[in-house]
Amino acid sequence: MKIIGIADTTFARYDMGRSAEDELGRTGTGFRIIKYTVPGIKDLPVASLILFKRNADVVIACGMPGKKPVDKISAQIASTGLMEVQLKVEKHIIEVFVHEDEAENDTELSWLCDMRAREHAVNAYNILFFPEKLGENRGKGLRQGFEDVGSTMGDGKGSTIRH
Amino acid sequence: MKIIGIADTTFARYDMGRSAEDELGRTGTGFRIIKYTVPGIKDLPVASLILFKRNADVVIACGMPGKKPVDKISAQIASTGLMEVQLKVEKHIIEVFVHEDEAENDTELSWLCDMRAREHAVNAYNILFFPEKLGENRGKGLRQGFEDVGSTMGDGKGSTIRH
Amino acid sequence: MKIIGIADTTFARYDMGRSAEDELGRTGTGFRIIKYTVPGIKDLPVASLILFKRNADVVIACGMPGKKPVDKISAQIASTGLMEVQLKVEKHIIEVFVHEDEAENDTELSWLCDMRAREHAVNAYNILFFPEKLGENRGKGLRQGFEDVGSTMGDGKGSTIRH
Amino acid sequence: MKIIGIADTTFARYDMGRSAEDELGRTGTGFRIIKYTVPGIKDLPVASLILFKRNADVVIACGMPGKKPVDKISAQIASTGLMEVQLKVEKHIIEVFVHEDEAENDTELSWLCDMRAREHAVNAYNILFFPEKLGENRGKGLRQGFEDVGSTMGDGKGSTIRH
Amino acid sequence: MKIIGIADTTFARYDMGRSAEDELGRTGTGFRIIKYTVPGIKDLPVASLILFKRNADVVIACGMPGKKPVDKISAQIASTGLMEVQLKVEKHIIEVFVHEDEAENDTELSWLCDMRAREHAVNAYNILFFPEKLGENRGKGLRQGFEDVGSTMGDGKGSTIRH
Repeated sequence: MKIIGIADTTFARYDMGRSAEDELGRTGTGFRIIKYTVPGIKDLPVASLILFKRNADVVIACGMPGKKPVDKISAQIASTGLMEVQLKVEKHIIEVFVHEDEAENDTELSWLCDMRAREHAVNAYNILFFPEKLGENRGKGLRQGFEDVGSTMGDGKGSTIRH
Repeated sequence: MKIIGIADTTFARYDMGRSAEDELGRTGTGFRIIKYTVPGIKDLPVASLILFKRNADVVIACGMPGKKPVDKISAQIASTGLMEVQLKVEKHIIEVFVHEDEAENDTELSWLCDMRAREHAVNAYNILFFPEKLGENRGKGLRQGFEDVGSTMGDGKGSTIRH
Repeated sequence: MKIIGIADTTFARYDMGRSAEDELGRTGTGFRIIKYTVPGIKDLPVASLILFKRNADVVIACGMPGKKPVDKISAQIASTGLMEVQLKVEKHIIEVFVHEDEAENDTELSWLCDMRAREHAVNAYNILFFPEKLGENRGKGLRQGFEDVGSTMGDGKGSTIRH
Repeated sequence: MKIIGIADTTFARYDMGRSAEDELGRTGTGFRIIKYTVPGIKDLPVASLILFKRNADVVIACGMPGKKPVDKISAQIASTGLMEVQLKVEKHIIEVFVHEDEAENDTELSWLCDMRAREHAVNAYNILFFPEKLGENRGKGLRQGFEDVGSTMGDGKGSTIRH
Repeated sequence: MKIIGIADTTFARYDMGRSAEDELGRTGTGFRIIKYTVPGIKDLPVASLILFKRNADVVIACGMPGKKPVDKISAQIASTGLMEVQLKVEKHIIEVFVHEDEAENDTELSWLCDMRAREHAVNAYNILFFPEKLGENRGKGLRQGFEDVGSTMGDGKGSTIRH
């Protein structure tokens, strides 16, 4: 039985962890989920490390950087920390960050958070169970949330998941 | 008996550590506080590390980055260092930074420092004693100091603490 | 038998790993290739580390940073992680990044991805088998993809590979 | 007998190490000074590490970043390195950086370098011998060089040292 | 017999390593030189680490960051990596970076590369054999390549080497 960790924040304005959890349930079996909530994105790296100490095989780290320049710096620091944790434990952290200013309004923001969390949950699942599925999509211009861009050769457009 | 470390600076223009200490006293028991003061925010990471060496279970790191571009860079370096310490000791540092230009005047700055230190003190307390309380607020758009933003689903507005 | 790792992404819009693989086959023998695909560039460092754990002697890390400011930050974080992995394992990672805005259109972007991947594949091959070939070109203003700039002394112009 | 290390550069336009050394002599006893000079600020981290290897208990790192954008980046890299050294040896480095563009002319620049080095020398001395003195000034808005800003509560203005 | 490592790139448009090597020969004896060439500046850190593994006592790392914003980021990442290597091996890397846009034309660029490499070669030599010579020039406003700026006290102008 594999363990998938989900780390999230009270700062984020949408419960992306719930979307990820729901999508994982639709995607497959053979794993159980452990969760950990922290105040903000800069707390996610040590939270992820703690989840790995609790035997997580992969961690999905959900966060929502704010609109201000200081928030952009925080996102950079958080990502750098998530990188450091991955190299320390030699396991993947799938970063699910939705910047608050990526969406026009709260409705679109909710939709984007939900979709990105779901599509990255599938990525996390495949990394654990079917890494060859990622290999089949190399260079295909996939995106999580908004529509896939597709390859420069004109093929591969479309979304990873559809509901 | 848990140990909560508080690191702060002589550069800051408000004694945020005192606010944190006062709020911790109102919040619960089962811990004692150890403190450490340094000149500026870039000295906080090693100060925090020293507090962990003195057996702190969590550290609250209080600082006030100035208004100049060079101060913003210092804040980024300080945060990166605080990240590194957390990953080294595998424990949380709650960063309580108030940028001097977040407030319009000294009165608001005092208020913001006091409130943010208090709300983050509760976060530090919960991380140690009641981590599930953070889980209950995942995705709720909480803020420390200024009013909570709330979730994109329209729920969850309001402040963590009220006096 | 040496092992050359190729790490790439589903985010990229061109299969640079295939170009690298093809060029390696034209360049020489004495190696076998192992591949690993991840969602985005920030996942490449731990992917590269995993390839080294699977005994790679050098890794070619292919990625395509997008056009937005947040993508540029991601590229910086990814490169910093790739640096960290190299210093950890004491082996080279040849970074093959093509920024989406380096080309005018999809046709040029395809061409650039293909060329840069091929020229860097030769670099990776030479690092493993003929490091002295790199020494012969020191200070020659070589570029991967676009035309070589040449040395300030007026010599050394021309491309490493021609098809 | 404690050991205070002073690291400085040939790039700087003022001998801040001499000011620090002089001020330490006026401040107290119980220590001896060891010095190390490098070309530029990016050489200060390893210089500081070497001073710690020679048993320094604290290091004062003096440097003067230039006016150009590239110099600002160098300062950031140098500070990041100084951070890393501190976390490695678990001891303080007091960074005495004066940016060349902080002063209007050479006379003011000399004055600023001298004052900042002296005030930070006192900080280094207190960290080693009287850490409680720093605690007495927490949140007081102290500055090194230019006049103290004071706390937002209206108290605490004035300079740490006066000649 | 000391060992001086020289790492350089095929991206640079001038063979700075040759200038450094020539100047070292004019400066003194008691060392031998080992060299290592890589494609670009981001490959210099692991190259330097490999030179230290081959027993180098100091490394001179020569590179020429390009004019584009992405090149400036690469330079920052490269310098950060060089910093990390120094702290790992506890030895100096003298970074000889000439930004392509520091000079007006190829003639000046050649001159600047040659001069900076030569002056830094002397620095590397002195760090190994006569560290006190650097101490004599602390705070003197020395520059490598362009003319020394001199100290704010009006003394110390002039170049380290003259031909």
